[in-house]
Amino acid sequence: LTLSEEDRQGRNCFVAWCEAAGCRVTVDRLGNIFALRPGKAPDLPPIAAGSHLDTQPHGGRFDGVFGVLAALEVLRTLEDHGFRTEAPVAAVVWTNEEGARFAPSMMGSAVFAGILDLADALTTTDRGGVSVSDALEAIGYSGSAPCGGRVLGTFFEAHIEQGPLLESEGKTIGIVTGAQGMTWLEVTVTGQDAHAGTTPVDLRRDALLGAARMVDAVHGIAVHHGPEARATVGVINALPGSPNTVPGAARFSVDMRHPASATLERMVEDLRARCQRIGGKLDLETRVEQVEYTAPVSFDAGCIESIRSASDLLGYESMEIGSGAGHDACHIARVAPTGMIFVPCAAGISHNEEESADPADLEAGCNVLLHAVLERAL
Amino acid sequence: LTLSEEDRQGRNCFVAWCEAAGCRVTVDRLGNIFALRPGKAPDLPPIAAGSHLDTQPHGGRFDGVFGVLAALEVLRTLEDHGFRTEAPVAAVVWTNEEGARFAPSMMGSAVFAGILDLADALTTTDRGGVSVSDALEAIGYSGSAPCGGRVLGTFFEAHIEQGPLLESEGKTIGIVTGAQGMTWLEVTVTGQDAHAGTTPVDLRRDALLGAARMVDAVHGIAVHHGPEARATVGVINALPGSPNTVPGAARFSVDMRHPASATLERMVEDLRARCQRIGGKLDLETRVEQVEYTAPVSFDAGCIESIRSASDLLGYESMEIGSGAGHDACHIARVAPTGMIFVPCAAGISHNEEESADPADLEAGCNVLLHAVLERAL
Repeated sequence: LTLSEEDRQGRNCFVAWCEAAGCRVTVDRLGNIFALRPGKAPDLPPIAAGSHLDTQPHGGRFDGVFGVLAALEVLRTLEDHGFRTEAPVAAVVWTNEEGARFAPSMMGSAVFAGILDLADALTTTDRGGVSVSDALEAIGYSGSAPCGGRVLGTFFEAHIEQGPLLESEGKTIGIVTGAQGMTWLEVTVTGQDAHAGTTPVDLRRDALLGAARMVDAVHGIAVHHGPEARATVGVINALPGSPNTVPGAARFSVDMRHPASATLERMVEDLRARCQRIGGKLDLETRVEQVEYTAPVSFDAGCIESIRSASDLLGYESMEIGSGAGHDACHIARVAPTGMIFVPCAAGISHNEEESADPADLEAGCNVLLHAVLERAL
Repeated sequence: LTLSEEDRQGRNCFVAWCEAAGCRVTVDRLGNIFALRPGKAPDLPPIAAGSHLDTQPHGGRFDGVFGVLAALEVLRTLEDHGFRTEAPVAAVVWTNEEGARFAPSMMGSAVFAGILDLADALTTTDRGGVSVSDALEAIGYSGSAPCGGRVLGTFFEAHIEQGPLLESEGKTIGIVTGAQGMTWLEVTVTGQDAHAGTTPVDLRRDALLGAARMVDAVHGIAVHHGPEARATVGVINALPGSPNTVPGAARFSVDMRHPASATLERMVEDLRARCQRIGGKLDLETRVEQVEYTAPVSFDAGCIESIRSASDLLGYESMEIGSGAGHDACHIARVAPTGMIFVPCAAGISHNEEESADPADLEAGCNVLLHAVLERAL
């Protein structure tokens, strides 16, 4: 989990490896890490690559970490060959991409890109009341560099696909053209606590019964809006949370995604309408609050071409693909030319300990990243 | 909550008041408290009254506490009048009636009545991993008296109705004839964690979607089995519990009640069948585990008559009533002649901070308890 003791250990390891590869490391106020390998022309903006080191509570090992280690491998390869690029080359670690401990997700890149206010990010707390600011201090990654305002010549992110398409199509490299839009909402349902033994069923205002029907409705919205639509309830709670009390309140998260912003907006409207209708029938009050919105993203045409020509040069089978997940690259695309490289992962499984990828595919992704970076940095 | 610092303060207050009323107080190994007022014939088994001091997370102030203070009021009234009964009279506090921190509920009376093993009760842990044994030690109520084996001549429990019937019928005293049967179950649904953005809806094994449909089915079971049936989901959790991960596991509690044991058994069979059917359709594994069962109870005919004649003597309006909730008296009924007195509570609301009762009704309940105790103890 982000800003945990394990995160500290991973970050320290990365920093030590970058310094051993001849890089100068700086940390910004939100804990984003920049490892810079100087170029011949120090005034050129750096060609950067990277991703994130944090994970979900149940893993996995490749989501994010692959992109960070791929960037490190680029730096090491340049160092091993004594190769000096024109522009500096940088490896970047973005803080709290997952959002599993602190919402919103993609926090480090959001503040860097001016989408989220630094003060808002630092004062965000986890379920235990610990703030991002305190968590950064605790692991020694509250840096002194400003977060944002740093010019990047290009940003590339290598990542496992986290979906089944490359594997099922037999392709090694996914040339990512863009990412679907995403929104997070919080639904709060309020009824009345009551005794489970004495309160007749027709006299109840059972908030969890309403929430359960709304969870089913969320699924129905995804089905209704077609194969590209995604809608997920990942967190649910009933209050007061006692087996023999009819819950007077319930709360759940909704994650909805679609590549077209108009459709995503209709999905949100559907959610509001269906929740109100379900709540109304059960005499419940329902509040639907939108807590995060990321518009669909199209990546830079020049970066897409750099990735395509690197893949062709190396002889890998490739295909264009859209990203189902949000990534730091989606935020960075607002402030720098940005591209993403996908490699297959086993059965499309991610956010799970079973997440896995073929070393040969990971190597291919690193090679494409190296050549794409070289084309931009030479 | 049971065995909390607040429980310790409430218990200490009760013990001090009983000692001031001339009683000898003993505590058994499960923290049940017995305050004994000697009778003229010390060999007669005591005529006992009482209830519990713990509450649900959201209250209320009358559930349990009224029955304990009513028993104390009987002891004080006898003391104030210097009245000496033949049999000893006792006020009893049962540990952990609510089950909100440690399952099962009605724990103290269950062990006392030989329904639950003392060692099993003592090693039960709360969600924080604290055992009943450690919690008893921490508040100083791990007593030395054996739990159970103590003969009670009679046990009376005065209690708020926790339902709307007395209020709507305009009656002051409910003569409780028995209690509905109750069972608690835990349902565990297992699918597969997956990424909320990349995993198409039709490839998901979403444990929470299954659990949500099962929660709706639990409601359907109560509706199907008629107005006396109760079925409630009070606790639900999705794992891993992250907004952007499709939950690979979900767990929820089910509380089901009915006055007829055959119907209650059919409700449990229905639950198993409906959960399996819903889980099967979504490619989920479903486990339904019965963690608690209390058979329907009929109270002692002699005790019922003592309550009726006390109420008639005092001129209160009364009616026979079944108990919708489980009570310590239901367990004690297995080892001693037992009866219960209900008084109205506002709008039938219970397990809620809004729980309320009219002081005049509470006084009437105390008076009926006093005269019922006197009839048995004289």
